[in-house]
Amino acid sequence: MTTTSSESTTPRTGVWFVGARGSVATTAIAGCAAVTAGLHPPTGMVTETAPFAPAGLPALASLVFGGHDTASCPLPKRAEALTAAGVLPHGLAGAITAELAAADAEIRPGGPGPGDTRGDEEIIDGFAADIASFARRTGVARTVVVNVSSTEPLPRPDDPRLPPSSLYAAAALRAGCGYVNFTPSTGLRAPALADAVAASGLPHAGRDGKTGQTLLRSVLAPMFVQRALTVRAWSGTNLLGGGDGAALADPAAAAAKNAGKERVLADALGAAPEGEVHIDDVPALGDWKTAWDHIAFDGFLGSRMILQTTWQGCDSALAAPLVLDLARLVARAHEAGITGPLPQLGFYFKDPDGRSAALAEQFAELLAFAERLGTQA
Amino acid sequence: MTTTSSESTTPRTGVWFVGARGSVATTAIAGCAAVTAGLHPPTGMVTETAPFAPAGLPALASLVFGGHDTASCPLPKRAEALTAAGVLPHGLAGAITAELAAADAEIRPGGPGPGDTRGDEEIIDGFAADIASFARRTGVARTVVVNVSSTEPLPRPDDPRLPPSSLYAAAALRAGCGYVNFTPSTGLRAPALADAVAASGLPHAGRDGKTGQTLLRSVLAPMFVQRALTVRAWSGTNLLGGGDGAALADPAAAAAKNAGKERVLADALGAAPEGEVHIDDVPALGDWKTAWDHIAFDGFLGSRMILQTTWQGCDSALAAPLVLDLARLVARAHEAGITGPLPQLGFYFKDPDGRSAALAEQFAELLAFAERLGTQA
Amino acid sequence: MTTTSSESTTPRTGVWFVGARGSVATTAIAGCAAVTAGLHPPTGMVTETAPFAPAGLPALASLVFGGHDTASCPLPKRAEALTAAGVLPHGLAGAITAELAAADAEIRPGGPGPGDTRGDEEIIDGFAADIASFARRTGVARTVVVNVSSTEPLPRPDDPRLPPSSLYAAAALRAGCGYVNFTPSTGLRAPALADAVAASGLPHAGRDGKTGQTLLRSVLAPMFVQRALTVRAWSGTNLLGGGDGAALADPAAAAAKNAGKERVLADALGAAPEGEVHIDDVPALGDWKTAWDHIAFDGFLGSRMILQTTWQGCDSALAAPLVLDLARLVARAHEAGITGPLPQLGFYFKDPDGRSAALAEQFAELLAFAERLGTQA
Amino acid sequence: MTTTSSESTTPRTGVWFVGARGSVATTAIAGCAAVTAGLHPPTGMVTETAPFAPAGLPALASLVFGGHDTASCPLPKRAEALTAAGVLPHGLAGAITAELAAADAEIRPGGPGPGDTRGDEEIIDGFAADIASFARRTGVARTVVVNVSSTEPLPRPDDPRLPPSSLYAAAALRAGCGYVNFTPSTGLRAPALADAVAASGLPHAGRDGKTGQTLLRSVLAPMFVQRALTVRAWSGTNLLGGGDGAALADPAAAAAKNAGKERVLADALGAAPEGEVHIDDVPALGDWKTAWDHIAFDGFLGSRMILQTTWQGCDSALAAPLVLDLARLVARAHEAGITGPLPQLGFYFKDPDGRSAALAEQFAELLAFAERLGTQA
Repeated sequence: MTTTSSESTTPRTGVWFVGARGSVATTAIAGCAAVTAGLHPPTGMVTETAPFAPAGLPALASLVFGGHDTASCPLPKRAEALTAAGVLPHGLAGAITAELAAADAEIRPGGPGPGDTRGDEEIIDGFAADIASFARRTGVARTVVVNVSSTEPLPRPDDPRLPPSSLYAAAALRAGCGYVNFTPSTGLRAPALADAVAASGLPHAGRDGKTGQTLLRSVLAPMFVQRALTVRAWSGTNLLGGGDGAALADPAAAAAKNAGKERVLADALGAAPEGEVHIDDVPALGDWKTAWDHIAFDGFLGSRMILQTTWQGCDSALAAPLVLDLARLVARAHEAGITGPLPQLGFYFKDPDGRSAALAEQFAELLAFAERLGTQA
Repeated sequence: MTTTSSESTTPRTGVWFVGARGSVATTAIAGCAAVTAGLHPPTGMVTETAPFAPAGLPALASLVFGGHDTASCPLPKRAEALTAAGVLPHGLAGAITAELAAADAEIRPGGPGPGDTRGDEEIIDGFAADIASFARRTGVARTVVVNVSSTEPLPRPDDPRLPPSSLYAAAALRAGCGYVNFTPSTGLRAPALADAVAASGLPHAGRDGKTGQTLLRSVLAPMFVQRALTVRAWSGTNLLGGGDGAALADPAAAAAKNAGKERVLADALGAAPEGEVHIDDVPALGDWKTAWDHIAFDGFLGSRMILQTTWQGCDSALAAPLVLDLARLVARAHEAGITGPLPQLGFYFKDPDGRSAALAEQFAELLAFAERLGTQA
Repeated sequence: MTTTSSESTTPRTGVWFVGARGSVATTAIAGCAAVTAGLHPPTGMVTETAPFAPAGLPALASLVFGGHDTASCPLPKRAEALTAAGVLPHGLAGAITAELAAADAEIRPGGPGPGDTRGDEEIIDGFAADIASFARRTGVARTVVVNVSSTEPLPRPDDPRLPPSSLYAAAALRAGCGYVNFTPSTGLRAPALADAVAASGLPHAGRDGKTGQTLLRSVLAPMFVQRALTVRAWSGTNLLGGGDGAALADPAAAAAKNAGKERVLADALGAAPEGEVHIDDVPALGDWKTAWDHIAFDGFLGSRMILQTTWQGCDSALAAPLVLDLARLVARAHEAGITGPLPQLGFYFKDPDGRSAALAEQFAELLAFAERLGTQA
Repeated sequence: MTTTSSESTTPRTGVWFVGARGSVATTAIAGCAAVTAGLHPPTGMVTETAPFAPAGLPALASLVFGGHDTASCPLPKRAEALTAAGVLPHGLAGAITAELAAADAEIRPGGPGPGDTRGDEEIIDGFAADIASFARRTGVARTVVVNVSSTEPLPRPDDPRLPPSSLYAAAALRAGCGYVNFTPSTGLRAPALADAVAASGLPHAGRDGKTGQTLLRSVLAPMFVQRALTVRAWSGTNLLGGGDGAALADPAAAAAKNAGKERVLADALGAAPEGEVHIDDVPALGDWKTAWDHIAFDGFLGSRMILQTTWQGCDSALAAPLVLDLARLVARAHEAGITGPLPQLGFYFKDPDGRSAALAEQFAELLAFAERLGTQA
């Protein structure tokens, strides 16, 4: 990752994680090192498949990681914990300690903390300064800021302060960085940031990574529509432990998350069907997530039919390769002078900029975007 | 369906079912009458959705039904049995007795029977004469022959005789009819029929309707590919009663059916994954079918994940609207002078003419075909 | 059911339903008539199995039905609706119209209504008078009052009024009737009724019929205990439509229901495991109920294992035969002079009088009770 | 496990595994060491629960392991492989290397090999000599032989040779050892061994450990019976990799295994229901096993209901603690002078000596047996 000779020719790209010590960021950093070192195939990374080869994306080996976090546990130790939890494979953490330690040295304290007396502007300036300092120190050509922190509660409409996710997002703009919001939190979508976003001339993508239950829904719902089958009720339950489970046990955070899930169904089906979505914090499951969906639909002459799905996945392992994909795509868009929201990346999100379409259409749009990137300087 | 005045202006279209007293044909005939009479919405009929309105398809009210069957139970009685089994809605059979009786009067004995001493040519001639006589008597503009009979065993390669499904298919050609094979049986794909098919100048479509487990597979498999997730094993079990369950309890028939299911996965994933498919005859389930799929896949850094699906549907209610769709589309293609195999109808089949692609692509091709039909005389 | 000659020798038994026009009561009344007439086997009725033959239970043919309800839709019409919903078999309602009409004639208005100005005592007196009048008119030897009405919200501790279920229960005592509470509502367990219950000398049983998810839990939880496997989390989701779904959409009613479900697990496992239970109102499902359970447990050396169950049943069809069982058992207990709570009927309840034990033990206790009944006058 | 001082007072007990290098034996040996060392709680070991404390069972610390195997991979290496496969917990194998190596030193070559020219008697003598030599060398008070090898195909009725499992079982008798058959293989049930078994005066138990799908069936089937619900079809599919999956891919071995599964249902329900059981070899699943069951049952008035279960477990981790239980119980029975088949251990088996009863009854019988052991010298 740090060969002297290539530095003159290969520009490096910064990836700045908001939530840099979390499971997703740790898995992304560890995985990037593992794939670069040839220890694992790039399973789950769409940008490593053939159609993306001509797109001019930054190489995995050229990515340099840093970020903000309010937690202080060092990345090598986090990686050990993720190994014990079955998220990272046995033996990996030891093989990439240097890369983990290098990223850890670029993590700065997040905030605002409980007793923070600074105003929003001051906090944003501080965050932007951290990012700019990282860029200078590492000599990266450009940096993408990626929010992978825990879901924050839906902001109260009357709150004059920006939610933390928006402070970080504003800092990204101020530091001249592309921005990705992989969470359901507000980020750049705060009304107070609208002008700054429009004026920034920076590419950005979001919101809310589509990794499991909603991914499934984005292929199943179109199937019912295409076959003219009437969905009567779509019910779902998610069981998850880990930090995400605890964060989503807060009803306000769960509401933020569910909004995205329901939008996918409503958009695909034309109207939201009956049925609820539950998110349960089940600490015993750790980083593993189980999602059960029950879909009651009508067939010919009103016959009642049912589809059930059970998805058992590791949340961080599902998210991490997509996060790397997005960092590369947004960095390349930035390089190519593409600005503003990137609806072509809707493939990755529950609540994308633009229409929340069927996965197949979103994939076609993504491929077209990759082709376009390949034709640009 | 029998207004005298409109007969001069609206040409009628014949639909000739091979297996005309079976559950699928009975449900299709009953359903066509029910939708025509406004008793039920056309749920499950893709050709009744907006994109197909300009395609010039024959109206449901203009379809005239007949067919071959070796069974003798009259359609009104079959409809009663399907009502008791929960396939047809309570009260429908009584409301459409006239339409059922009219179709029943156009059903001729199928074959060949056990002691039949006729040669293949003679049998084909007999079948073709039945179809031609139906066309003359009813005055239909054209007829589509649709095979919805029970799956027949895979033919032995050294058997000099044509399998029954091919005798019916050859009769369709001889009678100048479009042809649809909704079953996994051989039909037009017998090598001995290749020249006749090519010379016929008739449109045809097949093979093996995609109604449940394989429909699901055709949207799920592309999802794994698009997300660069590695499918390691895909296992499935089907439980079904009714005639289809009994027919598929014959290992040779089950093999014919499974070939189609596996082809979808192999085509979509690039290679057939580990895992088997079982089809169990469970008479207690009647016409209801349960399909369980278990998909073991690898995510980032080799993490092991699992998706399971359970599909509970009524086979006849899933097949019947597709059968009506196909009859209308092939009749219109015939009218528009389109000949030969119709790979644009791959949306409907497990083992289509042409590539067995992802459902989303197949749907796009179907819509394009509908648009093309709308622009032709 | 009304042969004159046998009336002199076979005493008849009254069954007075609170919620007499609901799905459970209608199914029980219809089913009793159907089984008596030999139209259906007594599937689901434990008291019709061999071990109960010598217990001296009142014959099904000797049961006479009546009850209270706030709804006014006549039973024959309710039975038609349950037929359309697939709860009652096609053709039954017409065959037993007389029995349904006879029961309907014995239904009196329930209460208290919204503007009711009567005090609790006055209401109880009115209900008791209805029951006593029914008993006189029909000449039954004794009557059992069975609460099968919708779950009422958990009463507020500071409410000086009795909840409706307790008004009905008090009326049962006042009318000298045995009492069964098949719902999670308060019934006889109101502290204000404790003295009256103790003084009544009447047999009673409850609470909260164990028909689906909890039935399963009462056999699965002991399995884990007997095999020394550690349950770490037990999560569940119930989807149900119909009146029960709507009633349980009220969080206070759902809380009442869930208390029973959790008690079974806590009693069987020694402590309540992690995990929540959701009850969703899904009108599309009608009277059909789906319950999904996800059980995470530890095996040898901490290996993580998972059991999932999906139960799809018709709530009324599950409850009705148990309700008939209970009416017969409590009537016989009354006849035999057995008084007070009947913990031997714990087999039927989520929250029984006495310990909420494993199903196998509860079944053994039930058989022993049946044997005891057989030895008493 | 090897304290010199206690050897004079605590007699040690031998456990001789047929299949000593397999996953089950390795897990049992590793687990015994881990629990003895206080590294893990004895989850899954019924004999470590309170009711067994007074039964006088040999302490885990007093067990000495050896066995036969045709494979040669040393136990410490096998333990590493099981760690990588997620069967043994991270870090355990290193902590108990000494115990694994000690057991490994007591493993002798199994057989007969492909070119073996010895007759049955000679082979049995050789095996018995191995066991006797182990007993002398280790000074154990007595030894129990436990078959945990792969399922062998059903023997052909006309084969004059004993199947391998019976050769090992005969050797156990000849060496004066108690015997446990945890597999569906023939073992002591070969007709040719009947006289030797009867004359031996040794305790023995079998057959076919009940660890997953059948364990579940043994609690679910009685539930249906107790509730008078009619099971119409019980279908099942097992997916498993590892050695067991490969062995059971042989239809003859699968037939042996399925016989036990079906016996449990037939015994519990009174008759075998419709439905098949499939066992699929899915190497991708490794030692993890998934079992799906689909149970169609009738409720009141013929209403159709369905229960589905999915069991995801680690086969070795389920079997190992039961194997340790059985070795201890049979050793104690031997010490107490109890001879012949031990139907009281039916709790552990699919195809027990005696009736294949409901789990709850079997558990009661096991507890009674433990109490009896406690009262004997």
